[in-house]
Parts: sequence; C-alpha cells; structure tokens
Amino acid sequence: MPNGQRLQRGPMMTGGTPLRSLDEDELLGRILPAFPGTDELVVPPGDDAAVLRTSERTIATTDTVVLGRDWLDAWSSGADIGHKVVAQNLADVAAMGGRPTGVLVTLVADPDLSIEWVLDHVRGLAEACAAAGVAVLGGDLSSAPAGVVMVSVTALGRLDGEPVLRSGARAGDVLAVRGSLGLADAGLRLLRADAVGRHPVAVARQRRPEPPLEAGPAAAVAGATAMLDLSDGLLRDGGRIARASHVVIDLDPQALAADVDALTDALGAEAALDCVLAGGEEHSLLATFPAGAHPDGWRAIGSVREPGEGESAGILVDGHVVTHTGWDHFRAT
Amino acid sequence: MPNGQRLQRGPMMTGGTPLRSLDEDELLGRILPAFPGTDELVVPPGDDAAVLRTSERTIATTDTVVLGRDWLDAWSSGADIGHKVVAQNLADVAAMGGRPTGVLVTLVADPDLSIEWVLDHVRGLAEACAAAGVAVLGGDLSSAPAGVVMVSVTALGRLDGEPVLRSGARAGDVLAVRGSLGLADAGLRLLRADAVGRHPVAVARQRRPEPPLEAGPAAAVAGATAMLDLSDGLLRDGGRIARASHVVIDLDPQALAADVDALTDALGAEAALDCVLAGGEEHSLLATFPAGAHPDGWRAIGSVREPGEGESAGILVDGHVVTHTGWDHFRAT
Repeated sequence: MPNGQRLQRGPMMTGGTPLRSLDEDELLGRILPAFPGTDELVVPPGDDAAVLRTSERTIATTDTVVLGRDWLDAWSSGADIGHKVVAQNLADVAAMGGRPTGVLVTLVADPDLSIEWVLDHVRGLAEACAAAGVAVLGGDLSSAPAGVVMVSVTALGRLDGEPVLRSGARAGDVLAVRGSLGLADAGLRLLRADAVGRHPVAVARQRRPEPPLEAGPAAAVAGATAMLDLSDGLLRDGGRIARASHVVIDLDPQALAADVDALTDALGAEAALDCVLAGGEEHSLLATFPAGAHPDGWRAIGSVREPGEGESAGILVDGHVVTHTGWDHFRAT
Repeated sequence: MPNGQRLQRGPMMTGGTPLRSLDEDELLGRILPAFPGTDELVVPPGDDAAVLRTSERTIATTDTVVLGRDWLDAWSSGADIGHKVVAQNLADVAAMGGRPTGVLVTLVADPDLSIEWVLDHVRGLAEACAAAGVAVLGGDLSSAPAGVVMVSVTALGRLDGEPVLRSGARAGDVLAVRGSLGLADAGLRLLRADAVGRHPVAVARQRRPEPPLEAGPAAAVAGATAMLDLSDGLLRDGGRIARASHVVIDLDPQALAADVDALTDALGAEAALDCVLAGGEEHSLLATFPAGAHPDGWRAIGSVREPGEGESAGILVDGHVVTHTGWDHFRAT
C-alpha cells in the first residue's frame, strides 16, 4: 500500500477446509494442474527445479504481498490477490523493455487458512499468467504463525534489445505515460470509505492492476531513454527517473487535468489531484523519449531539462516543487 | 525442518537497532553494497529489475525459510541462515545438472527485528553467493506481523547440457551419493539435546549445509540418469527417484555402515541409523548412473531394478520396506 497508509490487520480467511487438512503432495496435486505452461517451459514444476528456454539476457525481479499490509480479505478475493501480485511483477519486467516469460510463486500461510481461498488465489495467479503468456516455473509452500499469509512472486523475462534503465533520461526528452493515473489509489480510498459505487472502475483497478505489458518492449524499440512502472506514484517514481538521470522533470498540469477531472466526481478535486500525483499501485508505464518519439498510446505529460545552477535533480509540477511523503515499508505507521 | 518435528517458536532477535528506525532506501543502502556481482550480471539490483546474461536454458527454483519453523535464533546466527537458505536453493540447481548464476532474496520481517541481525544475515547470504560465483539479482523487503521473520530465495542457473530429472533411473543403474549422510540431522538432534560438543562437525553442517555444487553438472556430463539433492532424507528422496522412474531402489546397508558408525558415538546406534536413512537438510547429491559410471567422489550405496510382479516402485533397505514418516509443512505438528 502506498502513501504511508497502513491497512488495519484484517481477519484471515478461515472457514471451509483448513490448509492443514491436506499434506503437501495433496495440496500440490490440486495447485499444479491449474498453472499454465508455455512453449518456453522445458521442464515444468515437480522436479528439483524448472527449466525455461531463455535468450542471451534474462530479466529477473521479485515482489511480495502480505495480508494486512498489502491487502484485506474484506476488499479483495484470493483471485484478485493472485492477479495483482502477478501484474506488479510482470510490470517490472515490461518496464525494463522485456517480455515476461515465467514466474515462481511462494505461499507462506497459517495452516488454518482455508483451502478454498488458496485455490481461488491459484486461479487468479494462473489466469493472470495465462493472459500474459507466462509459465509458472515453480514455487514453495511453507507454514507461518497464526494469522500470517504472504505471497512472494519472482518474475523472469526475455530481453531481446537493450534494457531501458531509469538513468537514461536526457534534457530535451518528453515524459510520457502509458495507461491510467490515480485510479488504483482512488479505488483504495473508495474501499476505505465504503463507497465503491462512486467509481467501480477505480475499485476494480485497485483490485486488479492492468499494466500495459506489451507497451514496454515496444517503447524500448521506439527509443525510450528511461522507463519504470508506476508503483509508488507519479511524483515519487518520476523523481526516481529524474535523480537517476541527473535531470529535472517538469510535469505539465494541463496534461494531467483530464485524469484529475475523471476522479473529481467520486473524490473531490483535492483528493483526485493527490491520486493522480501520488497514488501508488497503478503499474502504468512512465518513460522518457526523445522529443516527438513517444509511440501511439503514450501521452506526453512533462518535459526533461538540465538542472539549473545550484538546482537538484528532481521532479516539479509546472516549475514548482511539490512535497509528498511516500510509502515506506518499515517506517510508515 | 524434516521428520515431522516442528521447532518451538523462539524469540526473534530484537535489541540493537530495530528495522523500523531506517527507511527502505537507507536499509537498501546498507544491504546492496554487500552483495556480489559477477560477469554475468548485466544490470545490477536497483532498477525495476536486474538483467542476467543467460544461456539457451535457465534453471529456476525457489525455497523459503521461516523463523520458528526452519530455524531458531538460539541455534543459528543470521549469517548461518543466510548461508543455509542460499545453499539449499543452489543445491536444487546443481541437482538438475546446472551451474547456479543468480539469486533473488526477499526478507519479510517484523519491524522490531534488529538491523544487526539483518546485516549479519546479509553477510551470510553474500558470502555463500560469492563462494559459489553467484550474483544477487535483487530482492524485496516487506514488513510482517509481530514475531514473523521469513526469507525467500529464488535461484537461477545455467544449463549447458540436458537436465537430469528424477525420472530417468533405469534397472541396472547404481545409486550413488556425493557428500555426507545424516550429519545435518545429527546436528539438529545435538542442538535439541544441548550437546553440541559431542559432534561439532554435525552441528556446523546443520547450521551451514555444504552441497557439492560442482558435482551436479559433472554428474550430468558423466551420464547421471536421475538426480536430486537430499532435502528430506535418503528414504524419502530416494523414494521420489524410484517412483518417478518406476523402479525399485535397494539400499545396501554395508555401504552406509561407515556413515552410521561416524554418528554412533554422539547419538547411539539407533538414532545414528535414523539420521543416515531419514535425516533431512543434508543437501548432498543423490543420483543414479549406469553401472560402473559414477564419477570419482561419488559412493555407490544401492542398486536399481525393475519392480517385481505386483510390486510397487519404491525404496528398500537390503530388500526390505522401511517406513518413515516424512516432514510435511502443513500437517506435521
């Protein structure tokens, strides 16, 4: 969860059949058949390790979600969490300019967790992987203390060109976004306010992000100079590109006005702006391109320049510094 | 932990400086410099994802350890746990006939965990990776409920020949082991009995397994027909090869006598035999080879034959069925 907001601990899904009632082989027998393979999967899960066909360079990333910190069972189904944890990992592969090819999944859970939740979760994982043409390469199951459920995913991807780093933005580039802004954070706020009917699309996006995966490698081919996926909000993530590239990025408020307007009815103008500038978990792609070179489907939302004398690298809005605190896993309360 | 024994929950390492006193960037700033790179690491951790140079086929596996289930802080240091979780993942890569090249590491921890423990753990991870010529490709940090500490590792490896599966053992093959038998379980028993002085080498092996990583790809080249690493004990893991290969494996007690003798002074004869036959976490390699083909350093400990009429595939000791229950994550108590 972004923005320094920590979820309340919620009750874990119990009821139905507890995980402890199956042994590991029985549980795996119900999980593994759900997972998709691909032509690139040479040895499927079940041996010491899986074997994946790879190119000369492989992208690797990992991201974990924890019940009570990253989701509440009252707000998201097991399948939703499966979709989400896959999406956020695959978005990182796309943001390097690569095509995701495989994931490994680890579930560490209280043995009282219901098997029904696990199987629903597995269905969500499998759907998200199948939709992206990604194989499940393996995983691990472990028991955890009472009330603990966490899912850790590692994603691998194929990199056929050069990786697009955060550090390549240059003065004169245009900053562009592919995908929505602020929807996932708006959805979170509506879930908190018990007002999901005010913007069902935003709530759906909070539950299941939709990273534009194919736009990542396409952006690399089109000459993107820097790229990342929006995990922690436009200001924080844009600031990461700016600092890594030693440039100043200036956001154009006019280019963001439609994003803010689209959320204003549901949230009011101030919160809508906050979602667009600082909302996390959107997993849209943010990239810089040489001026005029951003591909169709990307929207220009800012410009890149050298820092002035004595000016730090960073991100501005219409020439002004805007301060937002960001989400931090260990310190935020 | 193998053998149906569950550790008592132990206290988490607190004291010193709690994790919550650093923000994520500060913590990463103290962790990332410790991690080794290699010539194969094209983009190191710090961007959306890392990039690793790969061959046509990549091995991938993942394994997780949880405080109180897989280790007690009273028995193992943070560095020990770092060594162990890396070793058990790299052993899976070696057991496919591959050479490990990279790992991703996720730490999910109570924010009250001491930073000193984390940095010691990171040192152990880094040492184990550096010793094996393996790069750290990335990772994730997440907060967990009170008292929870878990570390999840995904390992990648390079496969230059054909993968050695569990299913390739054939009648007439010899079963051979590379490395020790029973030491890690003996060490666990001595830790439980507060008698580490009776066999310090066994205790050290329990804390830090020493999988013979280079023997994995060498066995593949030598024509190993099936292979795995001993995670759950000779009977259980040997039985996996037998069932996957539809053969009967018969262990030769004479070939195991020296292993049993070496533990008898410390544990007594019965427990020593139990460690050798059923002790987990050893991470030695177990493989089948065409008769006479096992390379130097491997010890022949059994033979492979077709099941007789009405006989199931499985593992025997000197022609007899020996029943041991194995460790199961969710059902064991």
